[in-house]
Amino acid sequence: MSSATVGIEVFDVDLTAAMSVAFNDHQYDYVVAPLVHPRFVRDVNAHNAIGGFTRSDTLLGSSQWNNQVLGTTSSWLELDALDEPLRVRSEAAFKQEIAWAAHLGLSAVIIPPPREPAVNYARCVARALAGLHYLRLLVRIPLVASPPLSGEGATAGGGGPVLDGDVSWRWWNQMRVLCDHHKNLYPALELTADLPSDPAVLERWCGEPVQVLILPTSIFLANRHGFPVLSKAHQAFVLRMSNHRVQYVVSGVARSDKGGMASYAEYMRHLLQRDPAKAQAGDAFDAPYRDVLQAPLQPLQDNLESQTYETFERDPVKYDLYEEAVRKALLARFPDASVTVVLMVVGAGRGPLVRAAFRAASAAKRTLRVYAVEKNPNAVVTLMAQKESLAQWRDSVTVVSADMRTWQAPELADILVSELLGSFGDNESSPECLDGAQKFLKPDGISIPRSYVSFVAPITSHRLHNEVRAMGGDAKHFETPYVVKLHNVKLLAPPQPCFTFVHPTPQPANNDRFGSLTFRVDCDALLHGFAGYFDATLYDDVHCSIEPSTHSPAMFSWFPLFFPLRSPTLVTAGAPLTVSFWRRTDGHRMYYEWAVTAPFVTSIHNPGGRSYYIGL
Amino acid sequence: MSSATVGIEVFDVDLTAAMSVAFNDHQYDYVVAPLVHPRFVRDVNAHNAIGGFTRSDTLLGSSQWNNQVLGTTSSWLELDALDEPLRVRSEAAFKQEIAWAAHLGLSAVIIPPPREPAVNYARCVARALAGLHYLRLLVRIPLVASPPLSGEGATAGGGGPVLDGDVSWRWWNQMRVLCDHHKNLYPALELTADLPSDPAVLERWCGEPVQVLILPTSIFLANRHGFPVLSKAHQAFVLRMSNHRVQYVVSGVARSDKGGMASYAEYMRHLLQRDPAKAQAGDAFDAPYRDVLQAPLQPLQDNLESQTYETFERDPVKYDLYEEAVRKALLARFPDASVTVVLMVVGAGRGPLVRAAFRAASAAKRTLRVYAVEKNPNAVVTLMAQKESLAQWRDSVTVVSADMRTWQAPELADILVSELLGSFGDNESSPECLDGAQKFLKPDGISIPRSYVSFVAPITSHRLHNEVRAMGGDAKHFETPYVVKLHNVKLLAPPQPCFTFVHPTPQPANNDRFGSLTFRVDCDALLHGFAGYFDATLYDDVHCSIEPSTHSPAMFSWFPLFFPLRSPTLVTAGAPLTVSFWRRTDGHRMYYEWAVTAPFVTSIHNPGGRSYYIGL
Repeated sequence: MSSATVGIEVFDVDLTAAMSVAFNDHQYDYVVAPLVHPRFVRDVNAHNAIGGFTRSDTLLGSSQWNNQVLGTTSSWLELDALDEPLRVRSEAAFKQEIAWAAHLGLSAVIIPPPREPAVNYARCVARALAGLHYLRLLVRIPLVASPPLSGEGATAGGGGPVLDGDVSWRWWNQMRVLCDHHKNLYPALELTADLPSDPAVLERWCGEPVQVLILPTSIFLANRHGFPVLSKAHQAFVLRMSNHRVQYVVSGVARSDKGGMASYAEYMRHLLQRDPAKAQAGDAFDAPYRDVLQAPLQPLQDNLESQTYETFERDPVKYDLYEEAVRKALLARFPDASVTVVLMVVGAGRGPLVRAAFRAASAAKRTLRVYAVEKNPNAVVTLMAQKESLAQWRDSVTVVSADMRTWQAPELADILVSELLGSFGDNESSPECLDGAQKFLKPDGISIPRSYVSFVAPITSHRLHNEVRAMGGDAKHFETPYVVKLHNVKLLAPPQPCFTFVHPTPQPANNDRFGSLTFRVDCDALLHGFAGYFDATLYDDVHCSIEPSTHSPAMFSWFPLFFPLRSPTLVTAGAPLTVSFWRRTDGHRMYYEWAVTAPFVTSIHNPGGRSYYIGL
Repeated sequence: MSSATVGIEVFDVDLTAAMSVAFNDHQYDYVVAPLVHPRFVRDVNAHNAIGGFTRSDTLLGSSQWNNQVLGTTSSWLELDALDEPLRVRSEAAFKQEIAWAAHLGLSAVIIPPPREPAVNYARCVARALAGLHYLRLLVRIPLVASPPLSGEGATAGGGGPVLDGDVSWRWWNQMRVLCDHHKNLYPALELTADLPSDPAVLERWCGEPVQVLILPTSIFLANRHGFPVLSKAHQAFVLRMSNHRVQYVVSGVARSDKGGMASYAEYMRHLLQRDPAKAQAGDAFDAPYRDVLQAPLQPLQDNLESQTYETFERDPVKYDLYEEAVRKALLARFPDASVTVVLMVVGAGRGPLVRAAFRAASAAKRTLRVYAVEKNPNAVVTLMAQKESLAQWRDSVTVVSADMRTWQAPELADILVSELLGSFGDNESSPECLDGAQKFLKPDGISIPRSYVSFVAPITSHRLHNEVRAMGGDAKHFETPYVVKLHNVKLLAPPQPCFTFVHPTPQPANNDRFGSLTFRVDCDALLHGFAGYFDATLYDDVHCSIEPSTHSPAMFSWFPLFFPLRSPTLVTAGAPLTVSFWRRTDGHRMYYEWAVTAPFVTSIHNPGGRSYYIGL
């Protein structure tokens, strides 16, 4: 989002006058207004009454309706009323108002909180969504539910201890599940004076597709000059959410603060401009990739393109780590500086690891004889060009155009350097490739990387799951892991180690793996799948990691993996969540299978690699 | 099943000798034998060892392998061993044995109890199932789990009170869910000396696809002559399950009872021949329809065929109930026997209600003038034929070839008789039809039926859900209610009333309905959907009902409805289960929507009638 968009909720009968004040006097960007003003009397069941139930659509141009107005539905609607005539009348009015908003070309309508039971309300929303193409429905959800009126919702939350803010989140969760996770349904989150005491409960909204943040004037404090400001805690949450392309709506009347309604808009713009997240390094690179699912590379089947090499070579951190690892290995294992160390780069690509090795040798004052082995003939062209143009390469680099698994090396290597790791460590067949290359490593030779561990964490992410659904609803899309910059995501527990590979390893190696992990999730949430990471030991204490707690700073070469679940399922805070992962190989293919066995049981995903595999 | 099939588990190396004894000396029908005798030494990882790992397939003819032998897998397999080499060796042996069973053409292999965690075991089973077309895998499940050995499974059952027999059922449940409810996976239920104390836990197996009942000799008692017999409780359960086409396997050594192994086969045959269920009336009619899904009739769109009329007219009970209702109405409301009562049969079909009305009038000594209104021109031919051939009809019946909703009656009726009810009462549009017919009923006239109530109950039925899946896995098949003779089904709670319709009713009537029902299920189970029933009040205290607690005895005209859920989900004993049902009409169509909101939330099924509706 280029700059903050701040709207204001108005209730005036004269919409154009209210808009004039909001835009010109108070500097808001848009208004939120009732689709039908209560003063318009109507009988929704009488066909001949239609036509006079609200303002004319010609009041504004269609671009204004689209950009400057969000609608709200009438406050008298009771879609779950036990009184049947009231319920039937409410259903008809709700349908009429949503149809009217679609007719006007509004971008969104904010609909009321689905206080329990809200099941017939959800049916009306599902019915409305089925007929909409463009209009979004935003469900108003208070951050913390106010105590129920006259006993309604008294049993909300079901069994177990109810955390702050769990009740209202459950309203949202029930609504979106009943509506089958519809892509045009979003929460409009209304801040409350009290924030949930549990940070996990607040953080949970980072995994939900929040589109609008509603800021009641009543939650603002007055600063020493009398102007409205938010508490530190509210500021922190607003800034956290600003990273998720939300819009803002100020709601309520100006309090005794100075500056009237204009001061709220001014404050919000001020607050959002100093957003520190915007200034973070890497953001510019990340932004277009956030929550965009990519199929994992098939490096053994496909040759990378020049642009892909270029992107990865630009990582400012990764090759420094390799250089440091090679330097430490040279110093520790080759004390005699007069010996020429045989170093083989397997999967040399366009040469970044060769260059890193030479930098390391130079720093360690050691001499190298380098073999650069590469199966992609296009990259070999680049390697040969460097050998011709660079004196250092001309003297000591042998470029080999071959698959490392079948190449017959003329001598054995002291050090074998590779960069075959995928987001999940072993998921681009590094183990199989290095098993093949290991035969030309001396018995006491060094593999860089020395080892790697994959990590798994349970996540909630309405958005990522819907991205998978958008591929067509076919089960196979839910049985594929995706490379994705996790953004509109909440981790439900810290990642745990899953599979470990060490190189060199006794041959023939068994690269099948099986692991069961048990997590304690930190809040009630809809489990959408699992995040996958890796942490590699290049040499000694030199790590290359994308596991969040040890992530190599500023390294951007890898995004995590997302392993979806076919059916998002509720998990509850504190209850053990057990998932099993398998890595399976059959000589031609490598694939993962995964299944949850507690607190619920899923089918085994991707059995036999039926939906996704890496060709070997 | 024509007669009981009783097998025996054998462990002899010499299979043909064992079979000869079992069949000729002991009168068993088949044997259960290890696929690989432990005495056959083998190295499953050595390719060249294959070929000598067990007996030759030429030992028996393929028809014998198919009909007279069930296999069991080796007892040493530990598919979830923490010791990786043992696990890998077990996986290879399991795969080899199942492949061998498939090669032999066996009908089924009994595989060991999936004591927790059993998650890798489940993966091996899923993998095996994916490659099988004919062979079934039967998971041995003890009726009550014995105490875990050396701490394994100590945490089985998770939270909540663990009922007798819940642990072993959970083994089965986890296995079948991990294997995605595969159609070739079944439980082989092994009886234990102790039966579960909770009858619901025992009854739960009636909703599971049990194929084999294993009877260890250790559970038999000795009668006063020293012969083996089962306790009354065991007998009752065996007879209950015999209704589900199970096979029997006697397992273990002959105890000190007289008669040796032969006496167990003899006892089982004796027990099963006196099965009282077999003698029940209606069974002969029901049997071919059990668990067979039928699309509900579309009576307004389609005309019934002669055979359908014939089948329904044969119901021995339904028309007696109508006769009784008409008789009571005539006596109660028309005290003056000299008055001719105008009785209209709307939807007269081939005339059974006309005949019932005449019988009632004769019993009540009243005179009728009858209008027989029928929209199916083919049925009108039959009605006209009766009018020509029967004096009673000739004098007093007017046959009307018309749709009751549009017919202009020449006079108003005292009594309106109809048989428009579906399995769920209103599901064949009886309310809409009678609304149309009501205009020719006198203001104080009588409708027979007077009212009807639909009923709903949660059910578990692996089989019914798999029948829906077999239609192709398309979501729309899970959003259709089916007419089905519920058989391999367990009700998880007593049915509750859902929708009520009363006739005549003030016009214009609103025939939309919305109801939320909360059940307490009586055992942990996989919820597969809901059963639908009706109870109609024909007149006064004359009911016509298929609701189990009030079912009109021996009436066979209606089977219940099955409303599936898209994803079978675990429900736990005692936890409230809330489901909402909607009946919706839009002038052209009538349909149901349904959704669960507790203890979990489902999407709304069939929103807007997208997958299923009745045309009006």
